[in-house]
Amino acid sequence: MKKIKLLLLALTVAAPLFAQTAQAQFAKPEDAVKYRKASLTLISSHFGRMQPTVKGATPYDAAAIKANVDVLKTLSTLPWAAFTAGSQAGTDAKPEIWSDAAGFKQAQQKFEAAVVKLSEVSGSGDLEKLRAAFGDTAASCKACHDSYRVKK
Amino acid sequence: MKKIKLLLLALTVAAPLFAQTAQAQFAKPEDAVKYRKASLTLISSHFGRMQPTVKGATPYDAAAIKANVDVLKTLSTLPWAAFTAGSQAGTDAKPEIWSDAAGFKQAQQKFEAAVVKLSEVSGSGDLEKLRAAFGDTAASCKACHDSYRVKK
Repeated sequence: MKKIKLLLLALTVAAPLFAQTAQAQFAKPEDAVKYRKASLTLISSHFGRMQPTVKGATPYDAAAIKANVDVLKTLSTLPWAAFTAGSQAGTDAKPEIWSDAAGFKQAQQKFEAAVVKLSEVSGSGDLEKLRAAFGDTAASCKACHDSYRVKK
Repeated sequence: MKKIKLLLLALTVAAPLFAQTAQAQFAKPEDAVKYRKASLTLISSHFGRMQPTVKGATPYDAAAIKANVDVLKTLSTLPWAAFTAGSQAGTDAKPEIWSDAAGFKQAQQKFEAAVVKLSEVSGSGDLEKLRAAFGDTAASCKACHDSYRVKK
């Protein structure tokens, strides 16, 4: 009975949601591109929204900043699996992402580590520490964009 | 010195990242639309990729499913703040999202609760429980889409 319910759901609701096959997270290169753009959009949003605090334009609400960085920490791990082979065409991704996979991996890890550091200081209420960790994270964004994203 | 570094970063790297003002998470309706679409894209991807397991087409790797549902749990909280006033035009969002805000809130909460439930059972290795919680989550997606999204 549950199987029937599930199949019905799969045919009605869920069909448009389930683009992926059993073989891969992303059935088509376009799915991977859409996914990585979506994850980078969220990263940019959650990172950028802390700027007023970092600049001192709004009060430093440590709990709110910490909650936001917790989301960012999860998001920071997402884009990379979506740089799948054959998904460069028509995007701003440089071929170096694939030809220099080790360097790209290192750039990701630097970003993820910067976000972990940001997470560690974000609940402290120490604005100077937050500012420094935020700056380091921004620098890791820039380094990766400089090397692996086509200049806009 | 850190301030200078930060300002330089803000002017170079970070400027395109920081679309938000101090006043709001989303400076423009377009930003909110882009954000909520991005978060729903990720939700769809992370939910959909469990389908082969739920269908029994791939072995139930409880640790992998749990890790995926943990990501989904974070993602499940994100889209709702981006249904900002004035961000309906040109989207598939029905006016009921704003005119029936209480109902929309309830639909979100049902989905989030279903994902929490899915999270609770996802590490158990019990495929029947996973299947039931997955089906309930899919049903909560459908219910919200039926009421609050324009039919495609």
